Amino acid sequence: MELWFTEKHTPNAGLTLKIKRTLYSNRSEYQQIDVLETEEFGRLLLLDGLVMTTERDEAIYHEMLVHPPLHIHPGSENVLIIGGGDGGAVREALKYPGLRGVTLCEIDREVVEVARRFFPRLSKGLDDPRVEVVFEDGSKILQGLDNQLDVILVDSTDPIGAAKALFTKKFYSSCHKALKEGGILCAQSESPIYHTDIIRSIKADLLEAGFQDVRFYTAPVPTYPGGFWSWVIASKKEIKISDQAPLPREHYEAMYYFNREILKAAFCLPNFFKKALE
Amino acid sequence: MELWFTEKHTPNAGLTLKIKRTLYSNRSEYQQIDVLETEEFGRLLLLDGLVMTTERDEAIYHEMLVHPPLHIHPGSENVLIIGGGDGGAVREALKYPGLRGVTLCEIDREVVEVARRFFPRLSKGLDDPRVEVVFEDGSKILQGLDNQLDVILVDSTDPIGAAKALFTKKFYSSCHKALKEGGILCAQSESPIYHTDIIRSIKADLLEAGFQDVRFYTAPVPTYPGGFWSWVIASKKEIKISDQAPLPREHYEAMYYFNREILKAAFCLPNFFKKALE
Repeated sequence: MELWFTEKHTPNAGLTLKIKRTLYSNRSEYQQIDVLETEEFGRLLLLDGLVMTTERDEAIYHEMLVHPPLHIHPGSENVLIIGGGDGGAVREALKYPGLRGVTLCEIDREVVEVARRFFPRLSKGLDDPRVEVVFEDGSKILQGLDNQLDVILVDSTDPIGAAKALFTKKFYSSCHKALKEGGILCAQSESPIYHTDIIRSIKADLLEAGFQDVRFYTAPVPTYPGGFWSWVIASKKEIKISDQAPLPREHYEAMYYFNREILKAAFCLPNFFKKALE
Repeated sequence: MELWFTEKHTPNAGLTLKIKRTLYSNRSEYQQIDVLETEEFGRLLLLDGLVMTTERDEAIYHEMLVHPPLHIHPGSENVLIIGGGDGGAVREALKYPGLRGVTLCEIDREVVEVARRFFPRLSKGLDDPRVEVVFEDGSKILQGLDNQLDVILVDSTDPIGAAKALFTKKFYSSCHKALKEGGILCAQSESPIYHTDIIRSIKADLLEAGFQDVRFYTAPVPTYPGGFWSWVIASKKEIKISDQAPLPREHYEAMYYFNREILKAAFCLPNFFKKALE
């Protein structure tokens, strides 16, 4: 028997992956969670049938979610990660020696349990003493926070279901309020190939929420729609890409995708993306 | 009826596209040629069942094949394009006002006929008076050429079948001989996600063929394997990315992917690609 998993990125195009076996399949309180073992990309985590991460290309996504904001704001002492229950973003954030604490706010306890069981390379940082894991709705954890955070990272699913609230002006306003004066928000912002409408509204909402500077950057992620992904950084002041190297050298050498040239290059957008943002 | 075309990029992973109809299907002297109309990417040209180009993302591939080399060697007067019977590379090359002549060397006359019939936006440049179309084996057209060409662009299929000869040290040596002192070769060099073995041997062969400087660059191409593609520039002298803007301004504005920031950014390689090249 040949078993293939196909994710339709639009009703008319998709990625198809040969599957060795299903390792986990359960409906949690919030969503359907499946773990498949693929031939090509190692283990694959699906939420509501959509590819969240694979062992083979997760490093591109997680490095690019975490290192650009933490290089742009290199003195960060605390980071709040909303979503990202697999632990990949936490693992990357923990590489910064100056970081005192990482809070992971994941709505679905079962995602963290599944990550601990099936994705140890991603979830290994969750037991670090600097990490606090909170099971709460990401749109609620910010309530009452004022001028307290250095960096908020939004490692969400697509803007459907539970994650919909994380793509609203209201949420961005809470982030703005929770961040310190020099603070920044960084969020995954969907595919420039298929989701320019979403990207445009993310930009408009972030500016309306009071952020002074909003900039997008990109990287290839083979198992994501279009194979090409974007992230957005929103800052309370002008974004400057510094030449600092806040990480110990061995971390740069061990990274799969990110390096300091990539940091600058990722912000150079193709014409079609620039036009979509106009 | 739902009709889907699936290209397996490896035995275990692929791209799947919904098809409206088949517009053309014939076995030429050299290969199977199919033109499908897709829902998502417009018309799709297949050679031997593999995606060559689609209306929607062809511009990324063709702009990135042509403009980096012609910016790095901005005074080029003549360009030889090997392969590329669809005309997309010719169209891009013709944008340079200083260019006196473009020779397109395509082995398969039927590819050019199909492009003229089904891909007028790609093939429109083929009737330009500066263009000469030659139907010949790309590995043979260089015989006898010595110190005559400014730029050779290799717009080939994968290194199987007719294109295999275009991925050999012998071919690269012929290119080296045919190029003028400052001349450069640029070739599509497969996917950094799936084809690092090929990429490594391309690099080794180019250096052994006598090129002084060999550099790879990348861009996302959604319908190509891994959604992430590479090209290689081989030069008889050190490659310098100049700040010149050899194109009229309107061409920069009208491009889909390329711009002068992208030119520099595309050469910033991710760690995994750098390591593959070591």
